[in-house]
Amino acid sequence: MEKKRKPYQLVSREWKKEDTIIQLKNTAIGGGNISLMAGPCAVENEDQIFTICEFLSKQNVKILRGGAYKPRTSPYSFQGLKKDGLILMRNAADKYGMSVITEVMDTNLVDEVYQYADILQVGTRNMQNYQLLRALSKIDKPVMLKRGMSSTMEEWLLAAEYILSGGNDKVMLCERGIRTFENATRNTLDLGIVPLLKSVSHLPVIVDPSQGTGLREIVVPMSMAAVLAGADGVMVEVHNQPEEALSDGDQSLYFDQFNDLVTKLKRTAKVLDKNLDLESEKILA
Amino acid sequence: MEKKRKPYQLVSREWKKEDTIIQLKNTAIGGGNISLMAGPCAVENEDQIFTICEFLSKQNVKILRGGAYKPRTSPYSFQGLKKDGLILMRNAADKYGMSVITEVMDTNLVDEVYQYADILQVGTRNMQNYQLLRALSKIDKPVMLKRGMSSTMEEWLLAAEYILSGGNDKVMLCERGIRTFENATRNTLDLGIVPLLKSVSHLPVIVDPSQGTGLREIVVPMSMAAVLAGADGVMVEVHNQPEEALSDGDQSLYFDQFNDLVTKLKRTAKVLDKNLDLESEKILA
Amino acid sequence: MEKKRKPYQLVSREWKKEDTIIQLKNTAIGGGNISLMAGPCAVENEDQIFTICEFLSKQNVKILRGGAYKPRTSPYSFQGLKKDGLILMRNAADKYGMSVITEVMDTNLVDEVYQYADILQVGTRNMQNYQLLRALSKIDKPVMLKRGMSSTMEEWLLAAEYILSGGNDKVMLCERGIRTFENATRNTLDLGIVPLLKSVSHLPVIVDPSQGTGLREIVVPMSMAAVLAGADGVMVEVHNQPEEALSDGDQSLYFDQFNDLVTKLKRTAKVLDKNLDLESEKILA
Amino acid sequence: MEKKRKPYQLVSREWKKEDTIIQLKNTAIGGGNISLMAGPCAVENEDQIFTICEFLSKQNVKILRGGAYKPRTSPYSFQGLKKDGLILMRNAADKYGMSVITEVMDTNLVDEVYQYADILQVGTRNMQNYQLLRALSKIDKPVMLKRGMSSTMEEWLLAAEYILSGGNDKVMLCERGIRTFENATRNTLDLGIVPLLKSVSHLPVIVDPSQGTGLREIVVPMSMAAVLAGADGVMVEVHNQPEEALSDGDQSLYFDQFNDLVTKLKRTAKVLDKNLDLESEKILA
Repeated sequence: MEKKRKPYQLVSREWKKEDTIIQLKNTAIGGGNISLMAGPCAVENEDQIFTICEFLSKQNVKILRGGAYKPRTSPYSFQGLKKDGLILMRNAADKYGMSVITEVMDTNLVDEVYQYADILQVGTRNMQNYQLLRALSKIDKPVMLKRGMSSTMEEWLLAAEYILSGGNDKVMLCERGIRTFENATRNTLDLGIVPLLKSVSHLPVIVDPSQGTGLREIVVPMSMAAVLAGADGVMVEVHNQPEEALSDGDQSLYFDQFNDLVTKLKRTAKVLDKNLDLESEKILA
Repeated sequence: MEKKRKPYQLVSREWKKEDTIIQLKNTAIGGGNISLMAGPCAVENEDQIFTICEFLSKQNVKILRGGAYKPRTSPYSFQGLKKDGLILMRNAADKYGMSVITEVMDTNLVDEVYQYADILQVGTRNMQNYQLLRALSKIDKPVMLKRGMSSTMEEWLLAAEYILSGGNDKVMLCERGIRTFENATRNTLDLGIVPLLKSVSHLPVIVDPSQGTGLREIVVPMSMAAVLAGADGVMVEVHNQPEEALSDGDQSLYFDQFNDLVTKLKRTAKVLDKNLDLESEKILA
Repeated sequence: MEKKRKPYQLVSREWKKEDTIIQLKNTAIGGGNISLMAGPCAVENEDQIFTICEFLSKQNVKILRGGAYKPRTSPYSFQGLKKDGLILMRNAADKYGMSVITEVMDTNLVDEVYQYADILQVGTRNMQNYQLLRALSKIDKPVMLKRGMSSTMEEWLLAAEYILSGGNDKVMLCERGIRTFENATRNTLDLGIVPLLKSVSHLPVIVDPSQGTGLREIVVPMSMAAVLAGADGVMVEVHNQPEEALSDGDQSLYFDQFNDLVTKLKRTAKVLDKNLDLESEKILA
Repeated sequence: MEKKRKPYQLVSREWKKEDTIIQLKNTAIGGGNISLMAGPCAVENEDQIFTICEFLSKQNVKILRGGAYKPRTSPYSFQGLKKDGLILMRNAADKYGMSVITEVMDTNLVDEVYQYADILQVGTRNMQNYQLLRALSKIDKPVMLKRGMSSTMEEWLLAAEYILSGGNDKVMLCERGIRTFENATRNTLDLGIVPLLKSVSHLPVIVDPSQGTGLREIVVPMSMAAVLAGADGVMVEVHNQPEEALSDGDQSLYFDQFNDLVTKLKRTAKVLDKNLDLESEKILA
């Protein structure tokens, strides 16, 4: 699709033909599986994270998402439970045999987050934080690189190239919506970038329709659309009491909406002869 | 999803709860059917349009798209066959029992296009051409209103409101990509707007992934994604010789890609317990 | 500044080296003069337009702006006085020896607007209304082509090329803000395009900071900035009672703000050894 | 201009009425002076930085800009001389009695950059790097906060609020262009935000037309425009051999262009009864 010489190399299909598959202890990302990552926007307290985690484990969800360090636009907003949040999330995930994905916001926090997480997430505001990318290139755990809110595909792949060129090839990309003039949705979820990424790169691509739209009512259809666009997985926010959530409650699914999502994604994956990762046998850690 | 009072009325679900269904002689748009509109970007000559039309009719495609009057960025580009193009398209469609959708660019052309088309299309550059919208509010044929390339959902619905408030309620909306900073794709196809539109309005929503992405390689996945996002139909460009096309060849499907599209869309529609319109019995005009 | 072959020709400096100067009966646009066009967003009634016109004539303003046919996002908003508005504006301008600029929204209205206006304006929503551009290429009066709200410089110059290639070389361009993610201002006034336009094209460039920002408080500084960016003129909205205006009152200057604008623009123009057109002798029509 | 309650406080004019003035050893920023910051995009070697610095000192420029740690889109691009670059810049500035502004990219680098710089700059990619903002809120040197390339004014002011609320009130803002659909210029310089910022905030506002446009030919007019829009200063890139520059040569001024800039900015500042900071007496450090 692109003729001109690409400025990236290690992330490209020309460099490596076959899909990158990222192996976790209890599941794998990429290569045909559809991963479903779910959890609250932010870890708020023990009760909340254990309640959500127990609920998710009944659906056999393999990967728990949750924010411990939260980048917030205002210094006066809830900034996360920090290390306490990491510990709570780790404990909840361990109890229910799940993997943990959570954001690392700064080079100084890499060691701490590494200790508790199975996947380290780079947030949209840090996609071009090159010191952080270099630090993550030196670890042996997977990294999920969210797209910068105004980053082109090329800039995004070059940010991934920072991690791969430093020595860490366990990288997945996450489309989470871009900033445009339209504000009927919080961001504009750019699903067209998904098949394009899959053709030029071997890295797994995850889609986050919660951040991407900001509206829980459209998370289910957009998750299904993401899978048929070619995504290797979907990350969604779910909360036991969305209307009480300390951050981003409007985009968090109710439990029954999440159950509906699972049912519909199973049907959707079949169109491409794929399966959701939660359809595979449960493996306790 | 929206709390503040809406500036539009007739197009809203609050005004009319049930889906608008637009009846054509050989099919219907909206209300559960998935419509597939296909044809070349521009009508180029008799051989081209009849060849394409014959091919499409074998797949039982009900609605032929094609440009006779083409809005082109440069005055030096091919501007379409104009009235001759309309006649050719009408003849080809009649031979194969299809309906015709084509663009009307100006108030002065409404009568002429009305004579040959079954659906009159308002192009992205004319979405806020209010004189044209008013002229189309006075006719008794359906109108497809493409989204302006930088129009918000609210502006789009207000443009539709011009047509309904003038007396024509046979209006469908067509998402065709918005203009953003990203140029890996020609436009950014905003699928997130589809479920939102369906919740606030009763009008059918069509998605055009050919214009929306500009890349034929991703038209198939994006068409499938559009259907699961909730679209009532998909409009695609197809050409017997895309590499020779007089306009937009890069985004036109080859015939075998189109066949693949039909197969995959049938499977996709089943996820929502819907059918493609071309799965219903063939009715010759 | 640009190396690749340009897709436009007649509008380029390569085609014509010297600045295009557009001669009106009472002033000239381009070629060193700084034109100041002013008036209400919309003509509302006789008293309003005569009051404003009388005020402007005291400052020796040469060109009266005002909308008679108004393109409005909602069909339920005030749509302008139409032909009555054209007549009122013409009468007011004639009484005070001014030229008239007003928008033409449709091919069907070209003859009517031609009769009353000295400059015909193409609005932002019609920049790519090619039938209208072609109709305006056949007249012998000047045309001001506003930039489409999401049009690139190249698309804009190609739209101007439609008019020149049809035979009318009295074309000026008007930057009026583009649509971006930022909504602190109504649009984002792209002053950087002004010196770029002046280097690639010989056409006069006008800047409209009223539409461009939507905030009267910043119209004065942005007008001064526009002149030093290289604009050949500024178009502003002024109203005798902005808070009562039927459209866009928030961006209309009060009379005393307009007087301040004139004082400051005179000083500003001197930096470039230029003069405002209203500093030249008053010529009654 | 804004009616709703603002989410920021310490940065607002409502909190502090009078302009913030940031005192350096050899000049002051804000409060009526027009600051001119100049230097190369990146420090490349001793000869380059001393040559440029000597040239600038002849014009009595007070603040030297230059990158030692360079955030680059590709991991394979020149990343700056790092600490060696800081030392070179400090030595050159000291020899010629200038202050130094340079970027700090990471919390781990705050101490090092603090040692050599007089003003610490936060780059566009780090505007929402909240750990970095918090670290900078604890130092006693001024911080220049560049606008994120897709940040709204509100997000920008909230990022500044992070620094002020942590204890450092020596903050200035720098508009450097936003990302839009237009790519005739590298970014879209949003001058309209300048008078708006000055009305809602007491912080000094600097404009960077080099980054903002990416085209040296339009840096001079855009600098003049910035001053009349209300900016407290301008930051430009200048290089002894732009065509040989290791980064961003296309936007760096030649020496004679810089001299022209100084002449024209002096005239421009007079329009507002202001002076360039380089017009004041030379003070050797």
